Amino acid sequence: MSFKKVKGGVCAPKGFLGGALGCGIKDPANPRTDLTLIYSQHPCVSAGTFTTNRVKAAPVKVTQAHLRALDLRAIVANSGNANACTGVRGIEDARTMAKTVAASLGLRQREVGVCSTGVIGLPLPMERMEPGLAKLADQLTGNGGSEVASAIMTSDTTLKEIAVSTTIGGRTVHIGACAKGAGMICPSMATMLCFVTTDANISKSCLQKSLLEAVEGSFNRICIDGDMSTNDTVLALANGQAGGKPIARRSKACREFSEALQHVLLELAKACVRDGERVSKFVTLEVRGASVYLDAKKVAEAIAKSALVKSSWNGGDPNWGRIIHAIGYSRARIREELIDISYNGKTACEGGLMAKTPIKALRDIAARDSFTITVNLHLGKADYTIYTSDISPEYIDFNRSEYSYWKNAGLK
Amino acid sequence: MSFKKVKGGVCAPKGFLGGALGCGIKDPANPRTDLTLIYSQHPCVSAGTFTTNRVKAAPVKVTQAHLRALDLRAIVANSGNANACTGVRGIEDARTMAKTVAASLGLRQREVGVCSTGVIGLPLPMERMEPGLAKLADQLTGNGGSEVASAIMTSDTTLKEIAVSTTIGGRTVHIGACAKGAGMICPSMATMLCFVTTDANISKSCLQKSLLEAVEGSFNRICIDGDMSTNDTVLALANGQAGGKPIARRSKACREFSEALQHVLLELAKACVRDGERVSKFVTLEVRGASVYLDAKKVAEAIAKSALVKSSWNGGDPNWGRIIHAIGYSRARIREELIDISYNGKTACEGGLMAKTPIKALRDIAARDSFTITVNLHLGKADYTIYTSDISPEYIDFNRSEYSYWKNAGLK
Repeated sequence: MSFKKVKGGVCAPKGFLGGALGCGIKDPANPRTDLTLIYSQHPCVSAGTFTTNRVKAAPVKVTQAHLRALDLRAIVANSGNANACTGVRGIEDARTMAKTVAASLGLRQREVGVCSTGVIGLPLPMERMEPGLAKLADQLTGNGGSEVASAIMTSDTTLKEIAVSTTIGGRTVHIGACAKGAGMICPSMATMLCFVTTDANISKSCLQKSLLEAVEGSFNRICIDGDMSTNDTVLALANGQAGGKPIARRSKACREFSEALQHVLLELAKACVRDGERVSKFVTLEVRGASVYLDAKKVAEAIAKSALVKSSWNGGDPNWGRIIHAIGYSRARIREELIDISYNGKTACEGGLMAKTPIKALRDIAARDSFTITVNLHLGKADYTIYTSDISPEYIDFNRSEYSYWKNAGLK
Repeated sequence: MSFKKVKGGVCAPKGFLGGALGCGIKDPANPRTDLTLIYSQHPCVSAGTFTTNRVKAAPVKVTQAHLRALDLRAIVANSGNANACTGVRGIEDARTMAKTVAASLGLRQREVGVCSTGVIGLPLPMERMEPGLAKLADQLTGNGGSEVASAIMTSDTTLKEIAVSTTIGGRTVHIGACAKGAGMICPSMATMLCFVTTDANISKSCLQKSLLEAVEGSFNRICIDGDMSTNDTVLALANGQAGGKPIARRSKACREFSEALQHVLLELAKACVRDGERVSKFVTLEVRGASVYLDAKKVAEAIAKSALVKSSWNGGDPNWGRIIHAIGYSRARIREELIDISYNGKTACEGGLMAKTPIKALRDIAARDSFTITVNLHLGKADYTIYTSDISPEYIDFNRSEYSYWKNAGLK
């Protein structure tokens, strides 16, 4: 199936508006856009996936409750403060965000999803946010996609948005999405947010299934440090404005929609890895030949999370010894003497031993900004691919202190 | 029970000799002591614990087989090359190390334990090592403890040895030990080795049980990065020269020996953390009030392995938000609203929310070289303590490349 890239981000699908403004959440003295709204002019079906961290931010709890009650038709989000570990007050603040926006849009409170990203443990500065929340609906326009994407950026250096059009069941369908970086990539914030809009006329069950599959094949496959945020959220809204027969679950059209959605989310997920601040390498890590899927996943994650492996990537060192050592402690079933490891197809380790490829050839590959490492366990047919990055001295330096946030919040 | 620190390291107990020499294993142009031998003048009982990495270095496999067959009476060890991922040749080389030493000592090959630490994937330079192996027994002296400890150092900056004397069953018993750093602390080598000698007259089963318990309470409680080496080995030799009634398992004397051994190994384990190259903080991390032991352990390990938490320690930032976020993804049973987190007893987080302690007081503590973080889950009675460190920009820099080793080995 073919996709055409189009402009407009989350506002590319018919009937979606977006807007943003700044209310100085992070730093009153230095305001930037930090509050944003997505709105569908028509009723939607909606779906979401959330962090599995057992410490969940207030907006996650509130949005999960809203989604269980009604379908979302709008999303309000802020950057600069995660509204996490903020107790009863945090829940009230998240509800106030939804309520204020709902009032100005003529929606019910539970039709509004709420997302926050930023520092943990500080209450939201509602006194600064409330005037902004009341004015937010006035900012909505049909070409506000980039403003939405921009307002959720934290340490991201690039705007991450995408929109595609494709044909499903004879109708032109648009999918738009934006995201902000995840985990170690945006460490001070440590949150991945992604908003998806579509004009597909799709059943709720098909949208839910497609979103779960697409997240599993994209955001769950990027691994920066294994840290999992209290706020990670992916929300999808479908307003049916493309028309045509509703796309039912288990139909060919549903599979096509799912494929298109996965394409969109994988692009954004890779963009999150590439935009890792202070990160210099994009590594595609393929694990092949595991006995079972979970073993392939364990091996990939052990490698991608190893600080020693990531340090060697930073140095452009084709250090397969550190990779095999991570494979060994992954708890997956392996046989050392069967393991092959290659860099862009050039074998570095064959049957658990150093291969004959000259080290210079491997070093040339590991010196590039982007390369593929393939591990073959030669035990079975299960595969798993992860997109990951190096770790740099500058990353640690960047993450040494969040004290400026506390100071800005007036704490001593 | 009371211990007296004594001099002599592994040679402090009666009847143990040690010695070392250099054969340029790592770099022929720049030789340092890299080959060492411990020998008991009397027969021993022996015990060992080994890495659980499924990729095991050749010396680990060989020593495990030797220990199953006979009791060890000598240990030969080299630094500069791990003899890991070296296949059949690696096994032969490890056996040759034991055999050559056994011949010069008049022992059977299987009475000699073999350990290696260094780079993975390169065969041992046996042509340079064999002359050294043949001469090694000539180096043995009764005060060679420090030479042994020095020869196994890799990126360690301090010699790690200890010896104590204590009274067990009316007899004066000595325990001596030396170690080299573990995991992320000694990253290029990524191996923890520890050799224990004692003149206690002890049964094999008491020695085995005591060693397992002491390692569980010491080396298994230091967590630098979660990377687990292919070579980690702890070996204990007891030659009975203190005399007296043999110490049987389940006796009071066995418990006393076990306690003394744990004291010795914990001192060495903490020294490994403190000597983390490019590491600036020593953090004692206590988890209390978990429902079950495994949950306390999961929480402690999740915190101690988080790159974000470790970065904040490097910056002296009392960032409890990152700690609670790691608790949340640890997979332990928790209730966010019950969690307390304190720095040297000063509460930073109370019931999952920011406590009233002024941030300045917390920052003063986190700025120190050494502090204690206590997490109380308030769910039950299970505790777990880990000794850990920060991660520094210099650490990443230090670990960017092992190419010099490959180059020294003549590979291009």
